[in-house]
Amino acid sequence: MKYPKSFEELLDCFKMLPGIGEKNAERLCFAVLHFNEEQAKKFSDSIMNVKTKIKKCNICNNYTEDSEICEICSDSSRDNTTICVVESVKDLILLEKSNAYKGIYHVLEGLISPLEGINPEDIKINQLINRIKDGNVKEVILALNMTMEGETTSLYISKLLQGTGVSVTKIAAGIPVAADMEYLDSLTIQRALEGRNKLSD
Amino acid sequence: MKYPKSFEELLDCFKMLPGIGEKNAERLCFAVLHFNEEQAKKFSDSIMNVKTKIKKCNICNNYTEDSEICEICSDSSRDNTTICVVESVKDLILLEKSNAYKGIYHVLEGLISPLEGINPEDIKINQLINRIKDGNVKEVILALNMTMEGETTSLYISKLLQGTGVSVTKIAAGIPVAADMEYLDSLTIQRALEGRNKLSD
Repeated sequence: MKYPKSFEELLDCFKMLPGIGEKNAERLCFAVLHFNEEQAKKFSDSIMNVKTKIKKCNICNNYTEDSEICEICSDSSRDNTTICVVESVKDLILLEKSNAYKGIYHVLEGLISPLEGINPEDIKINQLINRIKDGNVKEVILALNMTMEGETTSLYISKLLQGTGVSVTKIAAGIPVAADMEYLDSLTIQRALEGRNKLSD
Repeated sequence: MKYPKSFEELLDCFKMLPGIGEKNAERLCFAVLHFNEEQAKKFSDSIMNVKTKIKKCNICNNYTEDSEICEICSDSSRDNTTICVVESVKDLILLEKSNAYKGIYHVLEGLISPLEGINPEDIKINQLINRIKDGNVKEVILALNMTMEGETTSLYISKLLQGTGVSVTKIAAGIPVAADMEYLDSLTIQRALEGRNKLSD
């Protein structure tokens, strides 16, 4: 004796999701069972919609739904002389949520990682270089993770752009706001020291 | 700037599930976005199937899919003189997985809880009594949680069945197998002591 067939099928689907194990999948199935008809329909439909309607922006690889160009690239109020380079759409959204940036983006869809066999041509670096060649870009801000892969990718892009007259910057490494220094690794402390700012003479 | 519309809709659906917050819902949405067409269709369909195909067994309230009577109630190899009373289908499945029980079940769909305003008539106690009146039941095993609500419900049912000639038993309270006694509460220890078994004279 197990659960009914449809229940087992939904259980299998939930278990395909990251971080959802057997017990958790069961809980989620029971929750769906207690959804009303309308909620279940919305859930079911939105899964298919996400798969069929969401496309990648032709310019920056951000997600877009109703047009070929994403909301940000088609927003004329944004400063298109500054491109912020991110690893993924997830990071793009994080930057948008911070409300600290009014330029446009370029999503690399990965980072250079020789260990995993990901080379510069496997991610959207060429597309970025072409954008810069075509346009009136003045600054490229590298907003990649402070990991080996992120640093390698940042270095690679900045080398490619040397001598093109485009200013290349990297977001600051340092101590997170409201973090307890006690729990930070020494590399972070080291970077924070290196990047220290003068407050007064 | 937010995620595309379909993405936001799926995000909202995931957030309706228990224990899924904003960050987690985002992760799950990205996972769905990376499903292939077939996986997404299976996920989407199984949500609707769970809602539309799963019914409750007319006899014991277990889930059933293709017929009015669940697999267990319609299985003639099971001992229908013993009814095990559980709070929910979840508990029924747990007992089935233990492989220790070959009788039939009755799912109460809740426990008596005066604090939450759940009275005996709000759960499937009457249906249980009627089953016992109609049938050839010899034993009723109460397999409810060892909580205030579970104990109240057990006591209530056993009082109702007094003098009917049906034997009423309750599953043992005690120390979980492989548990470290150090971490158990004193009520569990007390129950384990009260329920001690003689090994030799």
